[in-house]
Formats: sequence, C-alpha cells, structure tokens
Amino acid sequence: MLIVKKFGGSSLATPARIIAVARRCVEDYRKGDDVVVVLSAIGKTTDELISLARQVADRPPKREVDMLISTGEQVAAAIMAIAMSALDIRAVSLNAFQVGMKTTGSYGNARFRRIDTDRIRHELEDRKIVIVTGFQGINKYDDVTTLGRGGSDTTAVALASALQADACEIYTDVDGIYTADPRICPNARKLPEISYDEMLDLASLGAAVLHNRAVEMAKKYNVTVVVRSSMNRNEGTVVREVTGLERMLISGVALDKNVDRIAVIGLRDEPGTAFRLFSLFAKAGINIDLILQSSGHDGMKDIAFTLADGDADEALELLEKNKARLRFRTAEVQKDVAKLSVVGVGMMSNPGVAAKMFEALYNEGINIQMISTSEIRITVLVDEREGEHAVRAVHDAFELSE
Amino acid sequence: MLIVKKFGGSSLATPARIIAVARRCVEDYRKGDDVVVVLSAIGKTTDELISLARQVADRPPKREVDMLISTGEQVAAAIMAIAMSALDIRAVSLNAFQVGMKTTGSYGNARFRRIDTDRIRHELEDRKIVIVTGFQGINKYDDVTTLGRGGSDTTAVALASALQADACEIYTDVDGIYTADPRICPNARKLPEISYDEMLDLASLGAAVLHNRAVEMAKKYNVTVVVRSSMNRNEGTVVREVTGLERMLISGVALDKNVDRIAVIGLRDEPGTAFRLFSLFAKAGINIDLILQSSGHDGMKDIAFTLADGDADEALELLEKNKARLRFRTAEVQKDVAKLSVVGVGMMSNPGVAAKMFEALYNEGINIQMISTSEIRITVLVDEREGEHAVRAVHDAFELSE
Repeated sequence: MLIVKKFGGSSLATPARIIAVARRCVEDYRKGDDVVVVLSAIGKTTDELISLARQVADRPPKREVDMLISTGEQVAAAIMAIAMSALDIRAVSLNAFQVGMKTTGSYGNARFRRIDTDRIRHELEDRKIVIVTGFQGINKYDDVTTLGRGGSDTTAVALASALQADACEIYTDVDGIYTADPRICPNARKLPEISYDEMLDLASLGAAVLHNRAVEMAKKYNVTVVVRSSMNRNEGTVVREVTGLERMLISGVALDKNVDRIAVIGLRDEPGTAFRLFSLFAKAGINIDLILQSSGHDGMKDIAFTLADGDADEALELLEKNKARLRFRTAEVQKDVAKLSVVGVGMMSNPGVAAKMFEALYNEGINIQMISTSEIRITVLVDEREGEHAVRAVHDAFELSE
Repeated sequence: MLIVKKFGGSSLATPARIIAVARRCVEDYRKGDDVVVVLSAIGKTTDELISLARQVADRPPKREVDMLISTGEQVAAAIMAIAMSALDIRAVSLNAFQVGMKTTGSYGNARFRRIDTDRIRHELEDRKIVIVTGFQGINKYDDVTTLGRGGSDTTAVALASALQADACEIYTDVDGIYTADPRICPNARKLPEISYDEMLDLASLGAAVLHNRAVEMAKKYNVTVVVRSSMNRNEGTVVREVTGLERMLISGVALDKNVDRIAVIGLRDEPGTAFRLFSLFAKAGINIDLILQSSGHDGMKDIAFTLADGDADEALELLEKNKARLRFRTAEVQKDVAKLSVVGVGMMSNPGVAAKMFEALYNEGINIQMISTSEIRITVLVDEREGEHAVRAVHDAFELSE
C-alpha cells in the first residue's frame, strides 16, 4: 500500500503534537506500507510571516510573498523528518524544487501542471518515509509559487494521483463530515461517505473541512479521499464517487453566516443591465454568490445578490461610484443574513426535497429571503439570528440524525 | 560597477533595521551600480530553529538540520526584496536552488564547488537588485547543504569571485579591523588595510570579524574585501594582498580567552608518542591548537597543548580512557589561560618583534606559559586574568595607536 497523509498546521502547533503525528505516520510504515506525508506550515507561521512582510511594505510583491511563506512548510517538513529520526525511522523531507512540483505561473494562486515522481519513488524504494512540503510549487521561471489557502489539501490529492496511491488521508481537527455542524446541531451524525459533488457544495457553503480545489482535483482524477481526525482513531468520512439507488436523500445541512446581501433597486429593465453590474464586480475581483432578479414592471427591475461579508462595503462603494452609468435608484446592504443549504445527490431524483425544506422553515416561522438551487443543493437566505434554529429544524425534518 | 554586499543577522534583527539595510543597498543601485546582496538569517532565527529541532530529537540528522535552518536565509532574502519594493525598487530574492550554488556533499560543513551565474546576470541585466541567500548550497544529490557558521561571508566572497565583482563589502557591527579590541584597548586604531594572511591569523586568534574560510577563499581568488559597519558611513578596512616596504611592523594584537591548556606529564620519550596522542584527538574531531613538548630526560617527557575550552573535558576523558595505551603519569587541565598574539606581515623581515613583545610583558610582570610562532605571528599563552592588561602593554610597546 502507498498512503498519502496530509496534516494541517494545528496538528503541528507544538513539539508534542509534531511527535504525535510522527508516531502516527510511523505505524503504517512499520506495517510495511509506503508512506508519503504532506504538511502545512506549523501553527500560525504563515500569518506571522505575512505580518512581518507588512511591517516592511504596504503591498508586498506576490512573488516575494510566495518565496517568504513557502519556508513555513519547509520548516514543518524538516522538523517532521527530525522527529521521525528520533523514532529510528529513516525519513527525508523534500521541497517543491526537489520533488519537481510544477505549477502555473500565478503567484499566490498557482495550480499544478505536472508532478515529477522520480525522486519520491526513489526515496520510497530506499524504504524512507517521504515528507513533502504542501501548499507550494515551482513555475516555469524556476520561481516558488503557492497554491492559495488550503493548498496543502490540493498537494496531497495531486501527489496521491501522480503516485497512484492506494489512499489519501486528510487529517483535520474534526473526525469527518457531519450532517450538520455538531456545535449547532447536537444530534448531527457523521457520514460514512459522501460524493465529490456533495462535498464541493458543503465546502463552499460554510462546512469547510476540505479545500474545494482539492475536492475538484480528487473528482477529476478519481482519488478517494478520507477525512479523519489527527486527535483520535475514529473512522473518518470517505469522499468518493457515490452511486446506487439507496443513496440518502440529503447528506447534510450547512450554514454560512459570512455573507451579506446587496439589493440594487430601480434599475432600468433593458438588455445589458446585469452584464454592466456584474462585470464591474468581476473587474474588482469581488465574487458574487446568489443572484436574484425580480421580474420587471414599469420599465424598472431590482437585482439582489449575496457576497462574502468582507466584500460588501467595497461593492457598495463601487455601485455608488458608477451610479450614473448603471442608472439605478438606490443600493442597500443587509448584513444580518445567513445562507442555509441542504445538499444531497439523492435529491436529483426526488422532487419533494425543496417542499419539505420550505415546510420545515414555515413551521418554525422562519422567513425565506432568497432561494437558489442546483441539481444537488437547495439554498435559502434567512435572517442570521434564525440561522442556527433553521439548521436544527431542517436537520430534524430530514431525519438526518437517524 | 558590480558590488556584492553582505549583511549579517544582527543588521536584520528588526523591521526598522531591515528597511535601513534596504535603503543603503538602494543608494548604490540608484547611482547605476549593479547590486547583489547576500544575507544571513534574521536575528537569532538559526539558533531558534536548532532549538526547535532539539525539542523533537536528541540528535537531529544533519541533512534535515540543513533543510531546516536554510529557511532562515530564505526568509531574510524575501523580506529584503519586499522592503525594497516599498522603496519602488525592483528586487528579486534567489535561493541556492535558483542560483545554482553547487557545494560538496557534507551537511553542516559544505564547501562551494561551482556557482552558476546565469540567473543572477539575467536579473541584473533586467535592472533588478538580486538578493541571494547566504550560508547554503545544493549538493549533487539535489539536497540543501549549509556551510557552517559564518558561511554567509563565504557566500559573498564566492559570488564576488564568480561574478568578477568590482567590490565585496562585508557589513558588520564594527566598522573595520582594529589594532586591538577597542573594548580592551581604548586607543586601538582602525587599520585602513590588512593582508589576507594577517586577517587569517587575526580571525583565528579571537578577533573574528570575517570568517576564516571567507578570507581563505578571498585570498585564493584574489577578491578584495571591505569590512565596514552597517550602522555608520565610516570607511572600513580593506582586506587584500598587501606588498611594499613601508608595511607596518605589526598590524594588530589579538586575545583569545576561549582556550584551555592540557598538560600530559610523564610520557615515555620514544618515537610515536605524539602521533598516538594527537591521532586520538583527530579521530574524536577535537582540534588542537598550540603544542609544546618539553625536551626529554630520564626517558620521560611532557607534552602540553591548547584547545577550544568547550573541548577540554572530552579531551581529558579520552586521555584517561586511553591511559594504559598512551602510558603517561598524569594529565592536567588549566582553564584560566588566554592566547595573546601579535600579527603582521612586516615582522617577516624584522627579527626584533618577538623580543619586543616579550620585553613588554616582562616589564608588566606577566608570565609567559607557552610560545608559538609563524612567519607573520607570535603567540604566547598567559594567565587569563592578565590577558587584557597584556594586550594593552603589547599594543603600547608597538605604538599601534599612532
């Protein structure tokens, strides 16, 4: 068996935790498996390095920020190899240059293009545990790139694919994917398995355990991923292509409070209005989430949309600046909203899901402000204060704890 | 002009100092010079990383320690490029992989074999300041090596040689080489220039400003090195091949307190005695400094030697363990000794130097325990408590403050 194991920064935050991770990796190695370990930077290292950069420049160049923060994973990898040496295990840490992790050119947000496996295979044949720096690569200029936040998950999946690994284990501080956030919904149940698409929807909807790009890559290359805890021995949740008639109707309920709603009122009801509006945000790098357009009357219409709450003020400013060109009456931001979603591949063949969700919310007197659906997801916008209550109501309605 | 500038960790210990170094480098760049900057790790980073390693393993493998500590210079180089960006200067940081700093294989103590200059020249042609990580290289296995303490000086000299630079400036916290340590000898005078050989003797005798290997390399490749302060604008000391009849008799007086003396008493006066004794230390990696052997009588002799004070206990232990084989009566260690040296190429053609030094010490009632000489150096061992007094006496005798 060839196993890729990924550990995040909080699993490495103290020398004791580093040693615990080393012991855990060594167990599989001693059983005879080949073990490749992917690590993030220790604890808050990345944030600390970025803060140091900000102390010497207001806008640090991205190329140099990548050079800077990529050292975090190199420290983690070397320290892990050192911790394993104390367990009498031969381990070798490799950075992106040494492995040959080739990426696209864009600093801070690169994507893998090709991973050389020669050096890793050579070290594995030599019966070493191979520890690889997550989150980073080398572009065609021979410069260091990073993959963006959560990039170490992507590194693990990419390596598992390139090495045709038998398993790709992502260790986190939760022991799997739950039907809802257990802090909100005490009777939430851990899912034994979940499909890539469901995981994608859950991740982007505020149940972030696995980085979305990692899930996309796992889906594309059909890599089976196991999400499990670095703190205990519980079976985790398997993320893979799930088929079969006996699929659960829905897999989980997710709540995202980090969202604001902006309503642009009194736009002219003519072609190009939406284009002008959203190309403005696209140019400013502001991601728009749900969009709802009222049907026009009297030659006017309204457009409402949601976006990450950190972007709302900038978006509103952009709107006011372009008011003359966009021609609208007023723009309003509403900050006390939350996005509630049910996700499940089972709903594709079952038309009653939306109705059941709306009924559950109606029974609790919770108002729905916007609705958006995909094949495997239904999302509603509700008052933020009612969000957690709504999660419990929907979770119960679909009997997810059973 | 192509200038290589090297800054040590204390010059980078705070964001304000980093910005000050950036400003200083940018001045020459704005005058039109090509500037290559070599940096050590910020402040105490290297020690902190080694301490972290020791928290997870008693004996960290050297290969991984090099992987670990080499990140320190990478952080420094990237932060410097970022600081320069805030001054609207295009700068690029390069690590040992990117430059192609090829070294021998030995971790923790590697030596340069070859330095590729293509990438650096390409960036300089692009009118960028190039910032290179000091202290490290890559061996033929594509693994990171480090050069040992003070290795960044060596990196700077090696780069200056490879790039045929017009100047190699080593910035330190002193503003040059003095005739004696100014803290001991308030009327010590800064030397405008000094020869490689004198610098080598001074560095190994406790006036460490430039790392010895850097001076050796500078001598071998005839690189002119300027030692100057990062804190002020004073002219520094030029280290180069010095010739001419008007050379000063001696250049400086150095004191090294970090030395112990061991006397092995009652050895048999027969061939092979010294060989057996010192091969024992060589195998254990203990460097022996001065050696003094008494002339034998009654078939017995004594051998005394000095060594770094950190090694004395281990050396004594080795002696006791091998007492039967070496056949001696007793071994004694004396810890309160110091090495006092006068150094100067001028003494080669002047026989009175030793006599003048001994006279100065005699006049102050300072006892000489051992004597060792080379072509350009005379070293005596004195009581540690009398060391500083001895420096002042000798400094005055040779009128070095004038």
